Amino acid sequence: MGRLSRDFAVTRVTVDDAGDVHTDTRADTVTVEEPLEIRVGGPTLTTTMRTPGHDIELLHGFLYGEGIISSAADVTTARYCAGATGPDGMNTYNVLDVDLSPGVSPPGPELLRLTPTSSACGVCGTSSIDQIMRRADRPLRTFPLDPALVLSLPDRLRGEQKQFRRTGGIHAAGAFTRDGEMIVVREDIGRHNAADKVIGHLLLDARLPADDLILVVSSRASFELVQKAVTAGFGAMVAVSAASSLAVDLARESGMALTGFTRGQRFNLYSGELASGA
Amino acid sequence: MGRLSRDFAVTRVTVDDAGDVHTDTRADTVTVEEPLEIRVGGPTLTTTMRTPGHDIELLHGFLYGEGIISSAADVTTARYCAGATGPDGMNTYNVLDVDLSPGVSPPGPELLRLTPTSSACGVCGTSSIDQIMRRADRPLRTFPLDPALVLSLPDRLRGEQKQFRRTGGIHAAGAFTRDGEMIVVREDIGRHNAADKVIGHLLLDARLPADDLILVVSSRASFELVQKAVTAGFGAMVAVSAASSLAVDLARESGMALTGFTRGQRFNLYSGELASGA
Repeated sequence: MGRLSRDFAVTRVTVDDAGDVHTDTRADTVTVEEPLEIRVGGPTLTTTMRTPGHDIELLHGFLYGEGIISSAADVTTARYCAGATGPDGMNTYNVLDVDLSPGVSPPGPELLRLTPTSSACGVCGTSSIDQIMRRADRPLRTFPLDPALVLSLPDRLRGEQKQFRRTGGIHAAGAFTRDGEMIVVREDIGRHNAADKVIGHLLLDARLPADDLILVVSSRASFELVQKAVTAGFGAMVAVSAASSLAVDLARESGMALTGFTRGQRFNLYSGELASGA
Repeated sequence: MGRLSRDFAVTRVTVDDAGDVHTDTRADTVTVEEPLEIRVGGPTLTTTMRTPGHDIELLHGFLYGEGIISSAADVTTARYCAGATGPDGMNTYNVLDVDLSPGVSPPGPELLRLTPTSSACGVCGTSSIDQIMRRADRPLRTFPLDPALVLSLPDRLRGEQKQFRRTGGIHAAGAFTRDGEMIVVREDIGRHNAADKVIGHLLLDARLPADDLILVVSSRASFELVQKAVTAGFGAMVAVSAASSLAVDLARESGMALTGFTRGQRFNLYSGELASGA
């Protein structure tokens, strides 16, 4: 898809050991980042900077993660706004109009992440976790992790990253079974969007809660990503980079297995258990 | 500061070449991620997940980047909410109460990034850039880049990253003069927060617009980061990782120099010019 990357004339600059500067200007492929505006029943709900592609999955994953929908049937229509045209008169494909089923109501902006979440005094990690745990209205089921399988997952994710091979600058998320079967891999310049696309795909495929699946992410394990994984019911999450304090707290409290720095022959197990015999 | 990182009991798992699994459970240092709630004149304006520390700088940088304040004097008071206590009865230091000067009014949530930005049809890269360019109400001044200096900056940034050495999982941003003098380096689990802290520091020090300075970031050059740099008037931005399409567009349109993949002996020059003789 031409919309996933764009070529720019870029100057590659090299300084050699003698201090001499060499330049070479040619086409270089860059990951596309464009805003996606999501409107629900008319008004704009949110705008996210994303890499185009799998927008319908992104939409479903986002609405699910925010607790607005709980099944694919809750979205009755989702289509690109016909009047959203750019300077060239072509549709931008950057505005999605969404209608929800009767009885499913969109929240005000005060319920969205990164927007005012509470007027009460005392926002802290604990109350945030309480909120997530209430939203994940099921006990999480998890499973023991096979270390060799865990270590194989980042490479398998990378192997599916077609855009990363072209640009060197795009995140990915993927869902794999506990036995290592790949279900879906999605790329996006925003790691949270990549996760939303995977979760949206699973929702549209009626595969949530994902308690027999592992979410693999090319990035670190932020609170936001662990929150999405816990909400979708994943049994485990494997991150290539570091985990944050609140991410570890949430994984432990919810019972989801979590690994970080999953690279080469080793990883950190922040939460969960290894398979016996391992 | 004990609040920047926390120790967890973490199991390090290694699978050796023979396939044998080795585990070692001990304390591991993890970067702290906690919500910072910013209230302006009473109501909550936004909540961001950040690493505690330099919150007053973060606050100023955020408000400046959003176009809400234009000088440090526009903030009359900024203090941690005395009533924001956690389960232990201690202040969470996660809620900031801010008052603005008379005549400086906080915007509604519809003006904040990642929240509904427009009710008009046709959100696209071009209109977003138009919006930024209007906000940056001065012509950007830039300067030719010395390649050897550019290549030295990521290492110098890394050299200042005390928390990165402890946790391996935290971003940084720094401001350096065009001659390489370090002005300020800040770390945060969110790369946008690290940039906000740097920009807030410069604002409090009356060093904006930063047209004689280079913003160095440990991450990729996203649209959001380039937007912050352009708004603060930086002459150049040096990113360790990739640039996105919209980031390149904005840098070129604003005239700010931009490099990406700035690693080892080479970098990509997406926008701007090299010093003559280079």
